[in-house]
Amino acid sequence: MKKKLNIAVLGSGFMGKAHSNAWLMAGKFFDVPFEPVLKINFGTDMELTKDFADRWGYEEITADWEEAVNRKDVDVIDIVTPTYIHKEMALAAANAGKHIFCEKPCAVTYAQAKAMADAARNAGIVHYLNHNYRRVPAVAYAKEMIERGKLGTIYHWIGTYLQDWIMDPNFPLTWHLQDKFAGGGPLFDLGSHSIDLARFLVGEIESVTAVSQTFTGERFLPGRGAATFASGESLNSEKGQVTVDDACFLMAEFENGALGSIGTTRFAGGRKNHNTFEVYGSKGSLCFNFDQMNELQFCDMTEPDADQGFKTISVTNAVHPYCSAWWAPGHVIGYENTFFHAVADFLNAVSTGKTIEPNFFDGEKITRTLEAAKLSNREGRKVKVAEINA
Amino acid sequence: MKKKLNIAVLGSGFMGKAHSNAWLMAGKFFDVPFEPVLKINFGTDMELTKDFADRWGYEEITADWEEAVNRKDVDVIDIVTPTYIHKEMALAAANAGKHIFCEKPCAVTYAQAKAMADAARNAGIVHYLNHNYRRVPAVAYAKEMIERGKLGTIYHWIGTYLQDWIMDPNFPLTWHLQDKFAGGGPLFDLGSHSIDLARFLVGEIESVTAVSQTFTGERFLPGRGAATFASGESLNSEKGQVTVDDACFLMAEFENGALGSIGTTRFAGGRKNHNTFEVYGSKGSLCFNFDQMNELQFCDMTEPDADQGFKTISVTNAVHPYCSAWWAPGHVIGYENTFFHAVADFLNAVSTGKTIEPNFFDGEKITRTLEAAKLSNREGRKVKVAEINA
Amino acid sequence: MKKKLNIAVLGSGFMGKAHSNAWLMAGKFFDVPFEPVLKINFGTDMELTKDFADRWGYEEITADWEEAVNRKDVDVIDIVTPTYIHKEMALAAANAGKHIFCEKPCAVTYAQAKAMADAARNAGIVHYLNHNYRRVPAVAYAKEMIERGKLGTIYHWIGTYLQDWIMDPNFPLTWHLQDKFAGGGPLFDLGSHSIDLARFLVGEIESVTAVSQTFTGERFLPGRGAATFASGESLNSEKGQVTVDDACFLMAEFENGALGSIGTTRFAGGRKNHNTFEVYGSKGSLCFNFDQMNELQFCDMTEPDADQGFKTISVTNAVHPYCSAWWAPGHVIGYENTFFHAVADFLNAVSTGKTIEPNFFDGEKITRTLEAAKLSNREGRKVKVAEINA
Amino acid sequence: MKKKLNIAVLGSGFMGKAHSNAWLMAGKFFDVPFEPVLKINFGTDMELTKDFADRWGYEEITADWEEAVNRKDVDVIDIVTPTYIHKEMALAAANAGKHIFCEKPCAVTYAQAKAMADAARNAGIVHYLNHNYRRVPAVAYAKEMIERGKLGTIYHWIGTYLQDWIMDPNFPLTWHLQDKFAGGGPLFDLGSHSIDLARFLVGEIESVTAVSQTFTGERFLPGRGAATFASGESLNSEKGQVTVDDACFLMAEFENGALGSIGTTRFAGGRKNHNTFEVYGSKGSLCFNFDQMNELQFCDMTEPDADQGFKTISVTNAVHPYCSAWWAPGHVIGYENTFFHAVADFLNAVSTGKTIEPNFFDGEKITRTLEAAKLSNREGRKVKVAEINA
Repeated sequence: MKKKLNIAVLGSGFMGKAHSNAWLMAGKFFDVPFEPVLKINFGTDMELTKDFADRWGYEEITADWEEAVNRKDVDVIDIVTPTYIHKEMALAAANAGKHIFCEKPCAVTYAQAKAMADAARNAGIVHYLNHNYRRVPAVAYAKEMIERGKLGTIYHWIGTYLQDWIMDPNFPLTWHLQDKFAGGGPLFDLGSHSIDLARFLVGEIESVTAVSQTFTGERFLPGRGAATFASGESLNSEKGQVTVDDACFLMAEFENGALGSIGTTRFAGGRKNHNTFEVYGSKGSLCFNFDQMNELQFCDMTEPDADQGFKTISVTNAVHPYCSAWWAPGHVIGYENTFFHAVADFLNAVSTGKTIEPNFFDGEKITRTLEAAKLSNREGRKVKVAEINA
Repeated sequence: MKKKLNIAVLGSGFMGKAHSNAWLMAGKFFDVPFEPVLKINFGTDMELTKDFADRWGYEEITADWEEAVNRKDVDVIDIVTPTYIHKEMALAAANAGKHIFCEKPCAVTYAQAKAMADAARNAGIVHYLNHNYRRVPAVAYAKEMIERGKLGTIYHWIGTYLQDWIMDPNFPLTWHLQDKFAGGGPLFDLGSHSIDLARFLVGEIESVTAVSQTFTGERFLPGRGAATFASGESLNSEKGQVTVDDACFLMAEFENGALGSIGTTRFAGGRKNHNTFEVYGSKGSLCFNFDQMNELQFCDMTEPDADQGFKTISVTNAVHPYCSAWWAPGHVIGYENTFFHAVADFLNAVSTGKTIEPNFFDGEKITRTLEAAKLSNREGRKVKVAEINA
Repeated sequence: MKKKLNIAVLGSGFMGKAHSNAWLMAGKFFDVPFEPVLKINFGTDMELTKDFADRWGYEEITADWEEAVNRKDVDVIDIVTPTYIHKEMALAAANAGKHIFCEKPCAVTYAQAKAMADAARNAGIVHYLNHNYRRVPAVAYAKEMIERGKLGTIYHWIGTYLQDWIMDPNFPLTWHLQDKFAGGGPLFDLGSHSIDLARFLVGEIESVTAVSQTFTGERFLPGRGAATFASGESLNSEKGQVTVDDACFLMAEFENGALGSIGTTRFAGGRKNHNTFEVYGSKGSLCFNFDQMNELQFCDMTEPDADQGFKTISVTNAVHPYCSAWWAPGHVIGYENTFFHAVADFLNAVSTGKTIEPNFFDGEKITRTLEAAKLSNREGRKVKVAEINA
Repeated sequence: MKKKLNIAVLGSGFMGKAHSNAWLMAGKFFDVPFEPVLKINFGTDMELTKDFADRWGYEEITADWEEAVNRKDVDVIDIVTPTYIHKEMALAAANAGKHIFCEKPCAVTYAQAKAMADAARNAGIVHYLNHNYRRVPAVAYAKEMIERGKLGTIYHWIGTYLQDWIMDPNFPLTWHLQDKFAGGGPLFDLGSHSIDLARFLVGEIESVTAVSQTFTGERFLPGRGAATFASGESLNSEKGQVTVDDACFLMAEFENGALGSIGTTRFAGGRKNHNTFEVYGSKGSLCFNFDQMNELQFCDMTEPDADQGFKTISVTNAVHPYCSAWWAPGHVIGYENTFFHAVADFLNAVSTGKTIEPNFFDGEKITRTLEAAKLSNREGRKVKVAEINA
């Protein structure tokens, strides 16, 4: 009989669903050292929270997240609330000695992220920041290929993360569109993923140069306030200021000399969750596009000229990362399964006390880079990441 | 509190896992009228069965499937055993008045499939045959488009279902390669899916003309007997006869005048689970490829010449079939989720008593068509489906 | 100064243009032993013929093809007329000792094609049948790869050649839609190409099983008679019978044991010139699609499981067939350039007296296979190619 | 009989071949008002020049370009020499009242380009700058769609132009790698194309922010000097300094508020001539990739959510720009044919005296933008194009 691990999930939206699913199911597919128990769910709207908790089988619900964090019978705090409150929750959890599983982006400022990293370090807890795309098997296999030297010296990272969900000018002023709640627009939401992947696969970023644009400067306030918006909800007739970017493009110089670009926007019509990257090295090139998340493209530059080309690998074979747990080759997996991988790895980290990545230390670096991009955009100049202080 | 529905799953392999997962999780994503309970699992190897049942949370296990079928506290029989035994199990289940959720292909002969259909009809139970690809959202949306008249008169079905898992001549003589256990090779395993999709989207098949080939005529017997082979298991030094096709290509004339082809093989290197179709009509064309299972291609022939082209629709929007239950647009789902859709629909059918499709009536027609293909191949001539008698 | 070679081109339509272009330009890109001279053009409509000849720089025109064939100062007869008259022209040319460059398909019957092959053999001339797709660099490179053993034993050919140009029921009854002029519908027009490619890359076909369908049985007669139809021309109010297939699907058993399929149709909406093939062998797989004619896909099955996948080779490198004559890697060529390759090879064949392929001997085999397909369709049975007699 | 127009082509390399081909053949496919005559070819190596001129049918050759420019019987000067000498040649040609057809990039500095534009303006000649990608039918059709309002307000340009031809550290220090001869590396060579396309489809660029990198700082000097390097030529043992970028990524703010990025590099393994763009607007999105130059992708955002997607249009239909001159739908054209389109349009411009674009006025703006990018990279800041003075 496995030891149970009690989980408090703070939040109950889209991400609450994805996390709950993963806590329940990771152990069905992976050999994990604990049986996670959905102990308690925190939400602000008690009716919605009760429905959510019933569906996913939580034992309890609460409207007081601090109470959940400080309960003796809770082992893990899973944070899926809007970004601005991550720091407060994480510090409380670290202080209570709870392990933390935290949705991205880490925080709205570098100072916050640094505080989270420091608190986690001091508390000696296991902490994980859910940049889930690292655990797409195709991406994990890209990492393996790079570590095996299949790319040689890396010259370029070309990343884009394009969406289109706020192109409608009547899309309301949700928390995502307010700097104080979100830290930034696509730069924070999508760019944090792209920067995480770039650091994972290429290395540390030394400087960034960023330009951003906001196409819709004012939007109607949502009926129930900025932080909660359900699709179809009636809008206020009042408008408020959009205080984040609608699009942010940046260029990155890596410490190892590679040159990269990252384009993020919420105004790319037809792109739903278009998270792509290309990595070019002296010996090979890799391409990934989340739209075909089970595929990785590789061009081996050590082959004869006549035979070079980009090869589409179906990363669904038992020999590929995470794939022995799943189905047969070609029986593709989906977005949600990346969360299972994260939970399985997290449970192993809790058991062994070993570090899992990305974590708040990564979040600290990513948020520092994001702040550098904001400064670069503001001042119209290249900014070294090291310029940014907490 | 939802009423519980007790499920007996007969079998515990790849498909047992996929079905168990779906029974557990369908209700988390879809509003279903019952809470399925994994009551009992039947397997032949008690050690493997116990491990399986523990992992998935079955209440009990048994080595006697008839006992499971006849238990008073079992409501649904889920059949995931090799094909040859489907009929016996289905007849027992129908006789016991249990609803049936049955993995494909239906049976090894038309006579068996007909017996299953007759038994189900007589018993008045809900019966479902798991040609799961109908419940890929992209395929379900293809059906919607056809029903909305977007294709006009249909001229063609071009289907392929290509795999490569037995190309190694050392792959052993498992039950899949023996006519008495499997009914046929890729013709039955893969062709049954393709025929199901063709009937679903185009209409009934009137005649078939088939040619098959077996490239590896003899194979080593697996250590533990034909019906159970775990990868990596040591082989006998003795060889046995392969009694099914390694590849079967067929052409189909539909009752409505459409002309189709279906190519199935297990000898298409690099094709892991390459289930594709193209449907051409007077007003539009549709293409699907399971390798990109979240996408559907559509060409609207009513557009001006200059603007015609195949459009790739990401069938992941809340307005698409099954998709409101899932994530956000572009957040793709996987193979396993098609089983959730089937379970959700099945539970609704049990609740309402309404028919769910495909079912044994479809299985009867599909198996008849498969037998027509076998006869066509044997006699080198076109065979009308109606020629085949039980 | 190169020796001149005088060319008489019989015909002045779409193919007359493509051939004239190639005669003029092949020598600019390839080192050829002759300078071809556009000596004389034959056409039935003198006004159109004059315009055509002026544009392409012919020295003369004629309304009497026999005169052109028998002129002393003509070295090569290039036949681009409707199929039914190929035999008569080819026999006259062979009798006059002229080399022949002939558009496909070879003839409307096996008997005709055999007569052409016999006449060419007896006359000892150079004869070429313009199945131009063999000379797409990607296809020529596919042949090289197969000859280097990269595919091993070949199991499958899956070919399709899909178009949509006659889907409009008001498209008139041109010569292409009349059996006596064209020999068949897409089976002859497109299927001859696909069979040529299959024979080129896989081997000889032993038997065929074919099913065809005609969706539009009657069509308006074109104003100026069946054999000449200019787009936009007014139609007669009278209708005539379509006497060819609108679609023909066939399966082929090759002498070496491979199993193949070929699907041809003019009713595949959105497919303009969709000539595709997949070849599956024990060591590798190849795919080609003329829509991306500069690309060849290859899957190397000798690679480790984790690294297998279909690789897209841009066949535009100087080391690829024909490509050193062209531009830089990635600077793609087009449809017309395949004719340049044919002319360059033909001129070399004339100079050396060596055989060029495909030629009338291939045409003989292809036409025999096409007739076998017609018989198969008519009788609803598998037909061995050897059953067909001239 | 058409009036003849005598062309002097200055240069005889890769581009000399592409231009000569176009002068000869444009009139075969398009109705043009002149018959171009290849009057004289200038080259520095008389042996190579003679071979070249013979092959393409030039009447004369010369080693003195000024003589060619000033000949009474020359009507058009076609400049295909290395970039640094464009200005001198163009000024001489303009002074002599000759029309100018000039290969890109325009010049090595903004001052030079401005001088060329001024000279052309003063001379009242027809001048054309060969950014040939505008005349890919798919790109020309993209322009048409934008002008028809199919994109609405444009938000983004995402362009890349990636190649890999100098990744080998033994690739020598040709003129392309020296700032004084080339003006820049891929920024000038490839970026000029991308900027031309961005201006063509989106509008004028207001500011740029650029970062560049040189991966191989020193290279062997080619045997015959920097400006002439034939592949396979033996290298000097001496090395020289690479004075241009190997990669340059930039971000562009357009006057109309759109935000764009352009990535150029010669170190993207597997990318041969990968010229791509994506344009995102309020009503639709367009994508182009030269690897599939006959295709244009369009996503119509005015369609219902369920039916949106990127559509691949085969821009080969008679109704598409330039396409009525070519073959049938789906019969793709190649790189070289874009030059035919340019020549046809140029000949019409000479006849009518109307402006053809792009021309030196565009070259002036593009070069100014390129210089702004160089300055931005040097100073690590955003640079307004208007900051750059001649």
